[in-house]
Amino acid sequence: MKKVAIYGLGTVGSGVLQIIREKNIPVEVAAVFDRSYQKKADLLGNIEATDDLAKLIDRNDIDIHIELLGGTELPLYIARSAIDKGQNVITANKALLAEHGYTLFNLASRTGSRIGFEASIAGAIPIIRNLESVFQGQQIYTLEGILNGTTNYILTRMRREKKSYSEILSDAQKLGLAEADPYLDVSGMDATHKLAILTSLIADSWIDFRRIHTRGIESIDLADIENAERMGYRIRLLGRTLMANEKVTVVLEPVMIPPEHYLWDVEMENNAIALDAQYAGRQLFVGKGAGRFPTASSVISDLYALLDENRAIFAEKVWEYGVPEDSGSMNSRFYIRIPVVDRPGVLAALAQLLANHDISIASVHQEPGNQKNNVNLTIVTHECKRANFIDAVNGMRHLEEVTDAPVYLPLID
Amino acid sequence: MKKVAIYGLGTVGSGVLQIIREKNIPVEVAAVFDRSYQKKADLLGNIEATDDLAKLIDRNDIDIHIELLGGTELPLYIARSAIDKGQNVITANKALLAEHGYTLFNLASRTGSRIGFEASIAGAIPIIRNLESVFQGQQIYTLEGILNGTTNYILTRMRREKKSYSEILSDAQKLGLAEADPYLDVSGMDATHKLAILTSLIADSWIDFRRIHTRGIESIDLADIENAERMGYRIRLLGRTLMANEKVTVVLEPVMIPPEHYLWDVEMENNAIALDAQYAGRQLFVGKGAGRFPTASSVISDLYALLDENRAIFAEKVWEYGVPEDSGSMNSRFYIRIPVVDRPGVLAALAQLLANHDISIASVHQEPGNQKNNVNLTIVTHECKRANFIDAVNGMRHLEEVTDAPVYLPLID
Repeated sequence: MKKVAIYGLGTVGSGVLQIIREKNIPVEVAAVFDRSYQKKADLLGNIEATDDLAKLIDRNDIDIHIELLGGTELPLYIARSAIDKGQNVITANKALLAEHGYTLFNLASRTGSRIGFEASIAGAIPIIRNLESVFQGQQIYTLEGILNGTTNYILTRMRREKKSYSEILSDAQKLGLAEADPYLDVSGMDATHKLAILTSLIADSWIDFRRIHTRGIESIDLADIENAERMGYRIRLLGRTLMANEKVTVVLEPVMIPPEHYLWDVEMENNAIALDAQYAGRQLFVGKGAGRFPTASSVISDLYALLDENRAIFAEKVWEYGVPEDSGSMNSRFYIRIPVVDRPGVLAALAQLLANHDISIASVHQEPGNQKNNVNLTIVTHECKRANFIDAVNGMRHLEEVTDAPVYLPLID
Repeated sequence: MKKVAIYGLGTVGSGVLQIIREKNIPVEVAAVFDRSYQKKADLLGNIEATDDLAKLIDRNDIDIHIELLGGTELPLYIARSAIDKGQNVITANKALLAEHGYTLFNLASRTGSRIGFEASIAGAIPIIRNLESVFQGQQIYTLEGILNGTTNYILTRMRREKKSYSEILSDAQKLGLAEADPYLDVSGMDATHKLAILTSLIADSWIDFRRIHTRGIESIDLADIENAERMGYRIRLLGRTLMANEKVTVVLEPVMIPPEHYLWDVEMENNAIALDAQYAGRQLFVGKGAGRFPTASSVISDLYALLDENRAIFAEKVWEYGVPEDSGSMNSRFYIRIPVVDRPGVLAALAQLLANHDISIASVHQEPGNQKNNVNLTIVTHECKRANFIDAVNGMRHLEEVTDAPVYLPLID
């Protein structure tokens, strides 16, 4: 029987342990690392536990290390040590893989280790397993995904309850649906970590997450939510990867989607991934993005996969770095809300700026701003070049009529 | 290299051959059976072909038989012969499996053969692979599915174009989206074949498709489509399986779903399957239900799975028959349209009949019927027992005021 070590007996770790027991999964949990293992005697039963990491890592009899800690420092140490010895690793840690995946996967391909990382991306959605087996060998032309449950939850509640970003965020924190430090989620960085890994698998070369144009939801105001409603759209924090002529374009940002869009109904903390596959065509996966059992379920799926010695598609690969194309080539219509002073000539100045960038205006809407004497000028453009549009937005910052950073979202039609 | 035989070089068969070549899948296509193989020399290249089935079946060197013929007689002969010899089979034939799966799977578990049948259910949606690997060992509490593309296509177009069933059906036939003999699709039987197989996998015992309460879409009138619109619902031909206390309840019938339902946007020829899994939670898969490459893609996924000797979860099982519960226990609200003569006292008689069955009425709507002096009386009930409701519907048939069979649909809220 294969020997398994579990690192971290928190929410997910205890869920994994419970499933292994309930379902009699044919592995032996040989050891558990947890800093407060002494308080978890009930959970552990007769499983050996330790808070001495080195002691566990030095063991040569572990076949599979299940790493479920936070941060990246200890996880990297655990993963490197295991892979160095040719042992297998399962991790739910997307930050670890986004930052060190290149090194870890290439090390694994040399030592014959395998890395299971289903739980690191989109919770319970079996996207890695399906990419590696069902869509094996098929080109993926496009991927679109809602990859972060916290931000989707915040956007959904802002729309439904017409409450501000900060109000809903602090409520989400109270409910345990957002971290005390929400940076990784609301900045889009957590979703970008996942998108970088998915994009690497699709592009067949390693994409550094730092190269992905990333914008979060911190600047989304209730005004934007209400404008979207008025226009018949909804706001989603969306990862998009396009493959064309072996070139990859990838971006993570808030967008507006119309009712016909297949992600329209993906609300609250759900995640979703849509693919356009060479032969299978359009495929959509929707499921829970986080939580004890949804995440543990993906860890268990990896465990089964690692118990099958024949399955090692991604593990065998030697990775090389790929460089995504500039996202400036992604054309679309754009929504932009520009906080301006309320005086004659402002619209004329902005319209001229857009015209100078070859952008034509489809509609203009004005409503009271957040401060006295200020208004929000909302413009929807016709389809234009993204690069031109972003140049224009940067130009707006220098106009004295513009009082705050404009907020812009592509319209995905 | 494993040797493969392909039976039937039609739409799907030629797609499979093309993918095997394009992707250099490590198998040798040793022979093809096709009745008009002589007209397909370009497609075949140097592959040996025959129209003599016995010759091909007698070969002992074939590892995997890919059966892509119509009907069930020849396919059964091919599958039995192959499995008898311990060879593997891939089939896209849901009628074959619904009718003879019990025999074939049990035979395979004795001879060590494996049967790949991903392509038989919901086209490109990788539901079998995910049930067998990702959700391995997890109980599935509910399954809901749009399992037939033709009927979903017809219902979508009836709604969008406000045209009658027969008009859209004949157009779908012209476009190749419905068969010349549409019986299997429109009666719901094709979807029930698939639902029986899925339900067997979930219930872990073989469910005979003849035991599934099945109603098709033939009696859905434009009036029902328009009533659904007025009520804010859409009509779907839905398969539903519920597992509770190791008992399975299963039904295939047209239903009404509200906008919040995750199948609201699954339109045209798309298929969808939603699961409630023990640990993974709610999962939704959407994809193309048919077509050359979507179906061929699932055949290829089976091919990869069969090339991995370790993967044989469903194949090892010895099946026993299971008996589903009576669906009369499935409570819901109901929509019913009753064609009646337009005279006083009719509503009173119907209301009394429903009251006698302990069914209370939420709303009544009346509009002109298809014939002179006739009206359509549309009633929506409060939640009630399904068995009571169906008794009441049967009772209506005996009222002289009722001129034609009532059409009823559960409301899935």
